[in-house]
Formats: sequence, C-alpha cells, structure tokens
Amino acid sequence: MSKEKTAISPTRADDYPEWYQQVIKAADLAENSPARGCMVIKPWGWGIWEKMQKDLDGRIKATGHENAYFPLFIPLSFLEKEAAHVEGFAKECAVVTHHRLEERDGKLIPTGELEEPLIVRPTSETIIGDAYSKWVQSYRDLPILINQWANVVRWEMRPRLFLRTAEFLWQEGHTVHASETEALEEVFTALEMYRSFSEEVLAIPVITGEKTPGERFPGADNTYCIEAMMQDKKALQAGTSHYLGQNFAKSSGIRFLDRDSELKYAFTTSWGVSTRLIGALIMTHSDDNGLRLPPRVAPKQVIILPVVPDATREAEIFAYAEEIAANLRQVTFFGSNLDVHIDKRDIRGGEKNWQWIKKGAPVRIEVGPRDLEKRAAVLYRRDQEPKEKHFLSFADITTRVPEILAEMQNGYLNAARVFRDENIRTDIKDFDEFRAFFTPKDMNKPEIHGGFVLAHWCEDDAVEATLAELKVTIRCIPLEQDGSTGRCVITGRPATKKAIFAKAY
Amino acid sequence: MSKEKTAISPTRADDYPEWYQQVIKAADLAENSPARGCMVIKPWGWGIWEKMQKDLDGRIKATGHENAYFPLFIPLSFLEKEAAHVEGFAKECAVVTHHRLEERDGKLIPTGELEEPLIVRPTSETIIGDAYSKWVQSYRDLPILINQWANVVRWEMRPRLFLRTAEFLWQEGHTVHASETEALEEVFTALEMYRSFSEEVLAIPVITGEKTPGERFPGADNTYCIEAMMQDKKALQAGTSHYLGQNFAKSSGIRFLDRDSELKYAFTTSWGVSTRLIGALIMTHSDDNGLRLPPRVAPKQVIILPVVPDATREAEIFAYAEEIAANLRQVTFFGSNLDVHIDKRDIRGGEKNWQWIKKGAPVRIEVGPRDLEKRAAVLYRRDQEPKEKHFLSFADITTRVPEILAEMQNGYLNAARVFRDENIRTDIKDFDEFRAFFTPKDMNKPEIHGGFVLAHWCEDDAVEATLAELKVTIRCIPLEQDGSTGRCVITGRPATKKAIFAKAY
Repeated sequence: MSKEKTAISPTRADDYPEWYQQVIKAADLAENSPARGCMVIKPWGWGIWEKMQKDLDGRIKATGHENAYFPLFIPLSFLEKEAAHVEGFAKECAVVTHHRLEERDGKLIPTGELEEPLIVRPTSETIIGDAYSKWVQSYRDLPILINQWANVVRWEMRPRLFLRTAEFLWQEGHTVHASETEALEEVFTALEMYRSFSEEVLAIPVITGEKTPGERFPGADNTYCIEAMMQDKKALQAGTSHYLGQNFAKSSGIRFLDRDSELKYAFTTSWGVSTRLIGALIMTHSDDNGLRLPPRVAPKQVIILPVVPDATREAEIFAYAEEIAANLRQVTFFGSNLDVHIDKRDIRGGEKNWQWIKKGAPVRIEVGPRDLEKRAAVLYRRDQEPKEKHFLSFADITTRVPEILAEMQNGYLNAARVFRDENIRTDIKDFDEFRAFFTPKDMNKPEIHGGFVLAHWCEDDAVEATLAELKVTIRCIPLEQDGSTGRCVITGRPATKKAIFAKAY
Repeated sequence: MSKEKTAISPTRADDYPEWYQQVIKAADLAENSPARGCMVIKPWGWGIWEKMQKDLDGRIKATGHENAYFPLFIPLSFLEKEAAHVEGFAKECAVVTHHRLEERDGKLIPTGELEEPLIVRPTSETIIGDAYSKWVQSYRDLPILINQWANVVRWEMRPRLFLRTAEFLWQEGHTVHASETEALEEVFTALEMYRSFSEEVLAIPVITGEKTPGERFPGADNTYCIEAMMQDKKALQAGTSHYLGQNFAKSSGIRFLDRDSELKYAFTTSWGVSTRLIGALIMTHSDDNGLRLPPRVAPKQVIILPVVPDATREAEIFAYAEEIAANLRQVTFFGSNLDVHIDKRDIRGGEKNWQWIKKGAPVRIEVGPRDLEKRAAVLYRRDQEPKEKHFLSFADITTRVPEILAEMQNGYLNAARVFRDENIRTDIKDFDEFRAFFTPKDMNKPEIHGGFVLAHWCEDDAVEATLAELKVTIRCIPLEQDGSTGRCVITGRPATKKAIFAKAY
C-alpha cells in the first residue's frame, strides 16, 4: 500500500507521537476531557478494558485472591505515615479541602473546610494498611490476599491518553504475610501472572526484571516489573509487583501474634496494572492504517458487513448475515463465546470497511447477493493489508474463524517478539558506543533512537545519573541472567549482572 | 428457635437499626472507614456486588446500551450550568482545590491551588453532557445509549453502611434522543429493567411509579422509581430513571441537525442504581440469625463442610468433598456455573456452621465419615432454621441442589411480597386515621410504625409539607392505577390518582 493511501496521517515513520494520537482518534477509543488531565474512555476503548479486566480478574482469583473495595479518599495524616511514600506522591496529589459550595456575590465558592484534608488515592497502601491493621490479630488471619479494581489520581502536568492521565483505572493487589519468604513468593506469583497475561492475552512480549533502587515504588524494599518494547523502540513499564518488606506494616501497625506467641510485624506486597496497558497495546500492534487488536481483547472479534445493492434485497441479505452471526456466537474462543457485530448502517461500503480497519477489528465478513446465492462469504483479516480475500463456504465459517483468530493472536505476539529481539543490542562494548546508539540520528525526530541495550552493569546507583543526559534509564535487571561476568558498559568496572537500558514512556 | 439463641443481637423486634448494623458485621460485609463517611466493602460484600453487576450489566447491554467511562472530576463551572442541578448538589460536594502537598514548618499542607476547583462527581450529567455536545451533530448520531459503572461522592453528615455513604458505587445510564417520545420510551425501558432485575435477581418486590415534583432529581422534568418495603415497613427507593427533557441538552449545548435541516436541542435521560441495593437486600431478607442471600446474588451458593473426626480420615473426606464440589461446579444456575466453596479450616464444626448461617450462604452440605461410607451427604437450607436436615445420595446432589436454590430464590421473593402486601393499607379514609397509622405506638421505638398507605392524593404539592411532621413522604404515584376517583386522604379534596405514602430510608 503506497504511503499516500494509509488511513492514519502522519505515519509511524513520519511522526510517531502524533501517529499514536491519531490512531486513538481514528479508532474512537478515548478523548481528552475538560477536567484537566482526565480522559473519556469511549465505548470501543472501554470494550478493550472490559476484556482485559475479565481475563485478568480470572487469573487473580485463580491464584487465590479475592476482590474488595476501599475508600477513594485518604486522610492526609495516613499518607504521612510512611516517609518515602509521601515524598513520592506529595507532588501529584489531588487534595479535597471543602465539602460544600455556597453562593457569595453571585459566585459559587467552596465552603465547609475539612479539619483534615483528604487526598484522592494515588495508590492505596496507606488506607488499606489501616484496615488490615484491624483485621490482623494472629497468624491464623494470614495471609490476606485481596485485590481491588479502582480509579486513582496522580496529577499530571503533561497528560497523554492512556499513557499518563491524571485519573486512571487499575487493579491493585495488597497482600499480608507472616514471613518474608511467603511475601516474596507472592510478589513473583503476581509478576508471573502479569507476564502470562501480557503475552497470552495482549500479545505483548515482556521482559521480567528487578528495578534499580532509584526506580522503586516509594516505600518498597524492592520493585519487580514487566517491560515491553514499543514500535518506536522505547520501553514501556507494563506492570509492577512490589515487595514492601515491613515498611508499611510498621507505619500502619499491621502486627500478628505468631505461633511462638510473639507479636510481630507482618510482611506486605502490592502489585498493579492499569489502563496504561491500552497504550501499550496500541503502540505494540498498530500500523499506519490504525489499530490492530489481538482477538482476545477485541470488543468484537468479527464484524459482518452486509452488502445491499438495492433495498429489495435488504431483508434476505440481513437474514443471511444474522444466520452467520448466530452460528458464530455459539463458537467459543478461549473460554468465551465469540463477540460478533453486524454493521447494518446505511453508509458506503468502503467507508464502513475503513472504519473497522481503523478500529482494529480482527476479522470482517462481507455478505452480498452473490454470497447469499452461493451460501458463502468473503473474509478479510486485519493482519493482512492490502486486503487479501478469503472465500469461505457457509459450513466452513464456524470452523475457520476461530482458527484464523488463533493464528492472528499468535501472529501478533510473534511479530512483536521478532521486532523486539531484533532491537535489543547485546554487543555494545563501552560508553562511547552506548552514547552513539542512544543519540538520535535526526534531531528533528528525537523519538527515533536505537532500541534496548542489554549489557553488564556495575550496580552502582550513581551510574543512573550519568544516563540522564541521554534520557536513558535502566529499565530492569532481567530475572533471567546468563551468569557471565564482564565490564560495566557505563563505567568499565567489573560487573556480574546485565541490565536493560532504554529510553522509556 | 428461642429468642436467646439468635445469632444476631439485638433482634429485629428489639432494635431494628442496630440489628441492621450487626447483620453487616456478623456477615463481614463492610465496615466504616477513617475516611469520613466512606466504607470498606469486604470480600463477601463485594462478591454480592459483583454478582449484581454481572447480571445487571447483561441487561443493560441486552437493551442496546454500551459501557464507557467519564472523568471523576467535574469543573465547578460545569456544575453551575444547570441551576436546579447545582442547587440540588451544592450542599454535599467534595471539592478539590489543590494539586500538591508541601512541607512547611514540619507540616504537610496543600499547595498548587487550582484556578478552578474540581468537584468529585456526585452524578455525571454535566460532564457527560459536555462530551455529548461534541459527539452529536446530526440526527444520524442519535440515539446515544451509554452506561458507566463508577464511584460517586455525596457528602453525608450521617452515613450508614450501604444506605448512605459519602462514596458509593453505582451505574449511571446517560442517553440522548431526537424526540421526547423516544426519550420517554428509554426512561421506561430502564425502569422496567430495574423492576425485573430487582424482583428476579434480588428477590425484592417493587412498586414502579412516578415521583412527585418535590422528590424529583435536581434538573429533571420527571423522575420514575422503584420502591421496596423493608422489614421495618419503611420504604427504600431502590432505583431511579429520570426524564431530563431538554434541560441538560440546553445547559450543555447538545444540539443536532434534524432531517428537516433544523438545529434542535436533544432530549436526554439518566438512570441509576447503587450499592444501596445491598442495604435493601439485607433489610428485605435477613432474619435474627443474620444475612439471607437470594442464591442468584450469593458469592457462593454452596458451602461444603467436611467433618473430620480425626486426622487419619482427613484426606479421604477432603477428597470426597472435592468430588462433590467438582460435580456441582459443572451445574449451571441461571446461565452461570454454581459457585461452590469447601471450608477446610480447622475450627469447631458448630462455629463454622454459624459463620455461614450469618453470612447467608444459601446451602450448606456436610460430609463426614458416615456420609462418605454411604456415598451421601446432609444438606441444610438457609431458609429453614432451626435447621432441617436433608439426606441426599451422591447421585441426587447435582439435581437437587439447583432445584433447591430455585425454590429458595422464589421463596424469598414470595415471602417478601406477602409481607409487603400485608402491610399496604388501602382502607385509610382521612387524615386522622392516616396520622394514627403513622404515629409510633411506642415512642422508644420510633422505627416501628404502620407500613405503606395507598390512597387518593389531590396532587397538590403543598400537601407534602403537611406530611413532614409525621416524617412521611409520598414515595410515588404507582404507574398501575385502578382508575377510581375519590377524596385525597390528606385534604379531602377530589382526587383521580392514588399515591404510596410511607416513611422512608
């Protein structure tokens, strides 16, 4: 397809950040709201989030967790209890100071000042910790394995749809354990859950690893993450799992009487993924014609497009479309029935087709008068553009569609894995090469840069400051290590671990 | 069961409001939070809400609506646009005025004052209306049929778990139409959805009706509701559906170019139910032994209780319990597989049993050594206390359990309907009788009063003020009317409509 004919302008190559915004607009996923930094998630975008939630919620429950719900507001004094925590979040807090509005001189002003301001939760460790401190008395009350689906607010100066918004939606798991060993096990259970979800459902390959001290969650002893590569070769942190040690147990007073009759502080963890994953999904799979959705998170996997040449034939063609849809809706795909939509709108066929291409619907099935006569249909796959026609008999539709969807699901994951692996450099020798790799070739397109570097690192935190000028960060120390020793790519000092270096969202 | 042996103290007859709090505590549904007026919904309470959400969400989608998500914050100026609306909510708004915290003299204080304060949404007509005003250009863009599941905040001076909390969870439907007729049809579609959901799923019989002008949603042309009767004979408004006319279309600028090429204001509706329904559920079905849950909203419908006399037999008894559970988990009940839990905790059998009675689990199945030998089990139903034993063979369990659950579901609805109908007085002739009916016989128990009165009403709003001294309100003018004319029960004036009068939550 020639460049002039792409549905999205600019293309990825021309202007990646603007392409991202245009894909969201063309797929009608979300828009900015007049409530500063907040977004409106539109039905197609919300449909993706619903699919994500349903699958991940199943994984959360299958690993022994229950859902619950904790308050939106956190008393200021609670946030203050953990010093590192409050320092990490103080600069981005929405603060509720009044509880009513009154008219004065024809203007509404806030009145009813609160004795203690309330913070709109940026994360819930402190308010949940307070509840847990009352629930936990004895080792018999442990472990507590709870998750919540909630909205959180972190004030953003430069919001960007899905990637950085003042309000975002997420799940946050908060668990309490009697021992460090058990708490660490939980941290890795959650991390593995995120890895498998990301790869199997979102078709996003990820690297699991440990964060450096400078990148830890405020108040955590250790933070683990999954890191993905976007198509501009930048990294995106797609989920985190925190080992909180006894820090929050101490600040919230979560203590238990152990088997040995001693009163001990518990060990806690927390872990979360958010609507940011929708941003990751867009930037991993989409092309210059718009969104491409892995079938497992597509709000509708199949769009049926009736082609009606004249009104006299409409009824029979619609009836045929309904027949196909009814059959497909009986087909299960990864445990759920297929979601099928018939687009009966009276608009031009070409326009209709392009709308669904831009929305990333995995499969489109066209049925016109000739298909009806032959009891057949024409199928188009979103992963094959310019569009390749697949002629299917009526009987084959229900067997071929789930096969094609499974092929696409795997295909998207494999393509993303190949792209990522091709763009991880493992042969960078020293800081000169490193600097050259991360310096944009074209200063007009600072977003185009090298990719990931996997190289030895001396584990000296001071190194991270050196990287700031290149806008590079250590994304993680991968859990999987080859065990080799070598020289730190930044300092040349001896090193036993390799790290992933990259620019990041 | 003698009074002394009830699990909940006080009983309903002794102190109904306190009984309500104790049922919540005994079932471990929720608790008050230090964030003033907010509640923590604990796993068993959240499980009920999840069941409600899943069913209602299916009904919302089956009637043609899509889900989306709009911001938590509303700019103050948006709220002001509709005069009646802002007046209705100004006194209970949580106001965000600052966006960061800074340390001054060792104290954290709010800084970064916002140019325009943000209101934490008490309801979303104004912020959603703003989005709709951009989405709607032509009659082709209509109708818009969108719902969101969200948290909302209305400052409460006297919070009460589930019934009145500062933060609560709900769904709010917001639709836009080209004509009044279509908008009114939508209002009744939503109302009927709430009626059927309430009766079929929650087993709560409701009266559908129209609110009087004084009880309308702020900014609505008309409000319709479903009203239920609690066991203390007070009314609880369980859901509302509002016809907003062109009020919000005008304040938000939702206009469309009609087929006749004229630019017209659209007609909007909104409708919602909330976590308040959990309060209604508790007060409709529970008894002096705690919660009783209609099986369709029970987080677990079946609890299996292994009885292990000595440790040597544990493995085989647990295995038998697992076998029963695995079979039951294959059984579908109203479209979903049964939720079954095996309680393997090593605590006294009697205590375990009482915990599940208090939690309202519909069915308990005990399996001990003798049951194992006979390949049988003993089943207890929560609707039959003092407990009646049902002896079932292994083969019968999977057929009898869903039958028993269906019987319980119907039984709860029928019992609630009989109770309500017995307590609707239709023979009150004049205001003297009316006053006597609503005056507590025992001033130490002001919550014990007459019930509902269905009587003629002259439709003069001034009447409602007269009722205030009795703490009675007009709950609704039922949609179902017998067409008779008569004398207003308050004023004696001629009247053509009957209304429901009651004290209410």
